[in-house]
Amino acid sequence: MIKVGVVGATGYAGAELVRLLAGHPKVELSVLTSQTYAGKNMWEVFPHLYGMVDKTLEEFNLSDLVSRCDVIFTALPHGHAMPVGHEVMRRGRRLIDLGADFRLKDVDVYQSWYKTEHTASVLVASAVYGLPELNRAEIRGSVIVGNPGCYPTSAILGLAPLLTNKLIDTETIIIDSKSGVSGAGRGLSLKTHFSETTENFQAYGVATHRHTPEIEQELSELAGMPVTVNFTPHLTPMVRGILSTMYGKLTAELNTEELTDFYRQFYKGERFVRVLPAGMYPSTKAVAGSNHCDLSVTVDPRTGRVIVLSAIDNLMKGAAGQAVQNLNVMLGLPEDTGLDFAGMYP
Amino acid sequence: MIKVGVVGATGYAGAELVRLLAGHPKVELSVLTSQTYAGKNMWEVFPHLYGMVDKTLEEFNLSDLVSRCDVIFTALPHGHAMPVGHEVMRRGRRLIDLGADFRLKDVDVYQSWYKTEHTASVLVASAVYGLPELNRAEIRGSVIVGNPGCYPTSAILGLAPLLTNKLIDTETIIIDSKSGVSGAGRGLSLKTHFSETTENFQAYGVATHRHTPEIEQELSELAGMPVTVNFTPHLTPMVRGILSTMYGKLTAELNTEELTDFYRQFYKGERFVRVLPAGMYPSTKAVAGSNHCDLSVTVDPRTGRVIVLSAIDNLMKGAAGQAVQNLNVMLGLPEDTGLDFAGMYP
Amino acid sequence: MIKVGVVGATGYAGAELVRLLAGHPKVELSVLTSQTYAGKNMWEVFPHLYGMVDKTLEEFNLSDLVSRCDVIFTALPHGHAMPVGHEVMRRGRRLIDLGADFRLKDVDVYQSWYKTEHTASVLVASAVYGLPELNRAEIRGSVIVGNPGCYPTSAILGLAPLLTNKLIDTETIIIDSKSGVSGAGRGLSLKTHFSETTENFQAYGVATHRHTPEIEQELSELAGMPVTVNFTPHLTPMVRGILSTMYGKLTAELNTEELTDFYRQFYKGERFVRVLPAGMYPSTKAVAGSNHCDLSVTVDPRTGRVIVLSAIDNLMKGAAGQAVQNLNVMLGLPEDTGLDFAGMYP
Amino acid sequence: MIKVGVVGATGYAGAELVRLLAGHPKVELSVLTSQTYAGKNMWEVFPHLYGMVDKTLEEFNLSDLVSRCDVIFTALPHGHAMPVGHEVMRRGRRLIDLGADFRLKDVDVYQSWYKTEHTASVLVASAVYGLPELNRAEIRGSVIVGNPGCYPTSAILGLAPLLTNKLIDTETIIIDSKSGVSGAGRGLSLKTHFSETTENFQAYGVATHRHTPEIEQELSELAGMPVTVNFTPHLTPMVRGILSTMYGKLTAELNTEELTDFYRQFYKGERFVRVLPAGMYPSTKAVAGSNHCDLSVTVDPRTGRVIVLSAIDNLMKGAAGQAVQNLNVMLGLPEDTGLDFAGMYP
Repeated sequence: MIKVGVVGATGYAGAELVRLLAGHPKVELSVLTSQTYAGKNMWEVFPHLYGMVDKTLEEFNLSDLVSRCDVIFTALPHGHAMPVGHEVMRRGRRLIDLGADFRLKDVDVYQSWYKTEHTASVLVASAVYGLPELNRAEIRGSVIVGNPGCYPTSAILGLAPLLTNKLIDTETIIIDSKSGVSGAGRGLSLKTHFSETTENFQAYGVATHRHTPEIEQELSELAGMPVTVNFTPHLTPMVRGILSTMYGKLTAELNTEELTDFYRQFYKGERFVRVLPAGMYPSTKAVAGSNHCDLSVTVDPRTGRVIVLSAIDNLMKGAAGQAVQNLNVMLGLPEDTGLDFAGMYP
Repeated sequence: MIKVGVVGATGYAGAELVRLLAGHPKVELSVLTSQTYAGKNMWEVFPHLYGMVDKTLEEFNLSDLVSRCDVIFTALPHGHAMPVGHEVMRRGRRLIDLGADFRLKDVDVYQSWYKTEHTASVLVASAVYGLPELNRAEIRGSVIVGNPGCYPTSAILGLAPLLTNKLIDTETIIIDSKSGVSGAGRGLSLKTHFSETTENFQAYGVATHRHTPEIEQELSELAGMPVTVNFTPHLTPMVRGILSTMYGKLTAELNTEELTDFYRQFYKGERFVRVLPAGMYPSTKAVAGSNHCDLSVTVDPRTGRVIVLSAIDNLMKGAAGQAVQNLNVMLGLPEDTGLDFAGMYP
Repeated sequence: MIKVGVVGATGYAGAELVRLLAGHPKVELSVLTSQTYAGKNMWEVFPHLYGMVDKTLEEFNLSDLVSRCDVIFTALPHGHAMPVGHEVMRRGRRLIDLGADFRLKDVDVYQSWYKTEHTASVLVASAVYGLPELNRAEIRGSVIVGNPGCYPTSAILGLAPLLTNKLIDTETIIIDSKSGVSGAGRGLSLKTHFSETTENFQAYGVATHRHTPEIEQELSELAGMPVTVNFTPHLTPMVRGILSTMYGKLTAELNTEELTDFYRQFYKGERFVRVLPAGMYPSTKAVAGSNHCDLSVTVDPRTGRVIVLSAIDNLMKGAAGQAVQNLNVMLGLPEDTGLDFAGMYP
Repeated sequence: MIKVGVVGATGYAGAELVRLLAGHPKVELSVLTSQTYAGKNMWEVFPHLYGMVDKTLEEFNLSDLVSRCDVIFTALPHGHAMPVGHEVMRRGRRLIDLGADFRLKDVDVYQSWYKTEHTASVLVASAVYGLPELNRAEIRGSVIVGNPGCYPTSAILGLAPLLTNKLIDTETIIIDSKSGVSGAGRGLSLKTHFSETTENFQAYGVATHRHTPEIEQELSELAGMPVTVNFTPHLTPMVRGILSTMYGKLTAELNTEELTDFYRQFYKGERFVRVLPAGMYPSTKAVAGSNHCDLSVTVDPRTGRVIVLSAIDNLMKGAAGQAVQNLNVMLGLPEDTGLDFAGMYP
């Protein structure tokens, strides 16, 4: 059994990770840390786990943590995974960071968008961006995986076939994303206060959201040239799910059926990407609780634009599910080990 | 007192109209019709009106209706207002149609998008598109008003200042709209079944929604040249509200503050359009239950695009509230008569 | 114009009060205080009021407040209205307290349930429990009104006809109440965090909620003998509304129709209590946004029990709406001044 | 592999059953029937199953069905399982009916509450009420299992320890239940129309709901004497979950801790019943997506009543999950086979 630790086990991504790892046949939950709830049992904080996970939350102790785990997941705000990265490297363990510290390749870009000094820049070059559908081989041999952000996962999977094949004018890309409230985490704020949030729909971080450079980095890589996009996130009155609606000018004359076929070819054999038949559209409910990313493409002949729709569960394919998928890739396990289930509907 | 009739009083737009007209100091509810509930009292169908509106719903009888009303509101699916238009014209009454029959100036466009023959094309030329902020003078003297669609109201008010002043490249406009479920009406369908809709977010009518030609007609009029757009509506798990997020390339170098000032000038004196101070963004909760349209503009210097956000309550400024505003304009009353209240929050 | 002040204007009850008072034809908003947001304009905190209420929030200054207001509303947690009560009494002004300080007649009971010393016990005897349907005459001449709690309002109005007429066995009363989340206020907590609250239903304060003694005091008064009840509040995933389901053994043989008629007689002429026709049941949506209390009674011949259902909007008839109703009674105005509207539906 | 069939696979209970059975290691989905969607693939009707369940829905053909299945699940409205019962008995197969046809032992009671003739009364005596925690031995050897209703499951598990041990006055029992909307099924109605249901809370079937005799039958069996109750169901604006709040007079002096201990003893070793530690209360979110039933007991010394709270997921422990649990019992498998997971939170 592989010994795993979750740092930040009582945030939403962390708790989802605990739930998935508790059901994973090849791992053993070795350490769970929580700054807020250290000393309590996990089920005292998350009642759905009562009788399912019986494990006391611990203070974060880096040396102790690394000595007791083969693989460590960090599910913390940005800035906290850097020291873990150093220690993991030194002691020959592995790290999957659900935060932003190891996603961006350009440390200056990181520092400019996150307003934080990067203290592990030496590790950045070897860290792998953990989107298995695109970087499977690199993930397999990696020591540090930067688990992608939730919005970037939905956007990059939706646009990859177009960019890889130069089917879209890279100067025309608009990404309009809508997320459930769990994406904002378990920390308290008026923005996530029930009475303010339910029956409400609003944009935030307009033209300034930190997932923008992450999306641009990966799209540029796929396109082989710099790509700049407009990305607008919105808060939707639901718990789970992201739907990204993406627009761009096509560079080739293709109709909806042809482009759908092309997407199905591109993602052939991928267990978690479902390119829907023409006429079906993604919805967040169809992926909630699963590790799926559902995609559709529609060509508008009136404007020459393609509209790509991409749906994920932000806590699963957008965070914890993808982290487990990365673990499976790293360990050479079947990629759906511990993830082999449909979502919950309705 | 002006005698008014509401045809289709038991749909959501119709019922909201009844609620507003019941509180309007200058009108008297003369006739309420309902195909489904004729013979019942209005409060048997809408319990919030118990003790507030005591009026029996009637079968639709065109001749009788017109003889008993000075102004008639039709709140029916498209195709049903045409005969009312003819009769109103013949008998010297007035019509405000909340459906689509008198919005489009080009009957061929209507017939192509709505798959219905237009049997009142002779009336179309004199019918006025009822967006008071842009067409106040024409509405005042009109006999037939085509009350705008909900999505078009949010989109047109959001883009009008840019198009009127040629500040936006008309080939780059994207309108990504999110609506509450009440916009789909009171008719039953899986799409509006609670368990399918709550905790769900999805697009529909991708590249084919019937509000597209209506938006394009008005934007083209404002721009003085043909405008084609991509418009994507989405269903949001809430009852009321539309937020439209709109994108386009600016043709002038303006920053957010300058453009905000320009919008404030453009809508100066408008009672129902609130251009928010820079840093505040529209949200559907801030307008729910009111006739307001809240706007913000953000310039993204990285891409040269403007992001316009526009929020309305789809049943108010997007339907019944705007219809009452049009009535007030027609009758020469202060425009906020019967509409002079803030929304409900939270 | 009567000059009014709202202390605690930025809680949900306070903000609702501001909205109602801004639309009230006989009052002028003189002072709004807020501990958290002093110095900001009201609309910066509550965006629905942008363009509707233009008033800067002030620090609480008791002497200044009382000198500038004829009537003061306190919308604060318990314990804060006592000094205001003293000052109002001394200076000949009037107070409507939306908190708990002037509801309970027995200061010991207050101190035992609220764990707070009562520093204005001398005022308690003359303070009036502000349920106009039952205490109208006393409210008219009062200086201090204790505005009822939200749960007690729904429960007492629902049970009053039975207790006043000894139709119910007072030892068998169960009150099972379900509230929207706005009842928990605008303060942040995990209990009101969107992702924890939506798609969730739970009880709280089982057998210990502070509204219990308030309910028992008023029911005992109506019954002319001590009444003890079981009261269980629940948190419901919605913003506004309380539905109380109440059970008790009937002491007389009455059927549903007879008891319904009896309730209609009891509340005859009451503007805000709607006893529904047999076969219609209250729902929170039918009263949301209005000052109504909707009631139904059902007799179960199998068990000899009556089931009373009572629905209110907790921020309206359960707080701010009732406070305005009390103001109208105090001032001798028609009781629905500023409250004469139906709720918002759907 | 056991061959199973699901009759009525496209209702919510049926679809949940398909999801569970698809992940069950010992069964093979042999036949799925649907009246409405025969000819379509299951994933065309339930998009979360795309790529997970690839099976065409069939018309219901009784003879063919029974010949192709070892165990049949009927997930249909009452009245439809009777002929299946006859055929299953004749051909030596087994039936788990998620409807009401085999729950009530007294055919007259069935016919009186369900207004339907019972055409399989000869089978009723041998059918077993499928609540494994109470009837495990009988289920093991049974041919026909009447899978309990959702409300009865929550109520009976909550009250069983009290009744079995005569700790409650059987004339004082009140069951106040609150259900998510999925309990009303996938059929369309205004009651389940999103805009009518969200932000709404209401009672229904007051004193007349058909689960009453089922609850009374089982409670009477446990008590060894006739038990009559008041049962009131309510519709809650959420998809999944039932919380039942139950009240009764205790016949012994016990405090909360003692009674909690007693419950823990009573349910010792039960995999799916979680008696929560004193101070923790059940919530529907803590059980959503799992087969758990969470219980708490609180003694109110002021009134001598116990308040029992019981939470389940109505589609899992209240329908499909319990059906799979019954299957496991019938087949002698570990009872959590295919059900061994925590719920989804948040």
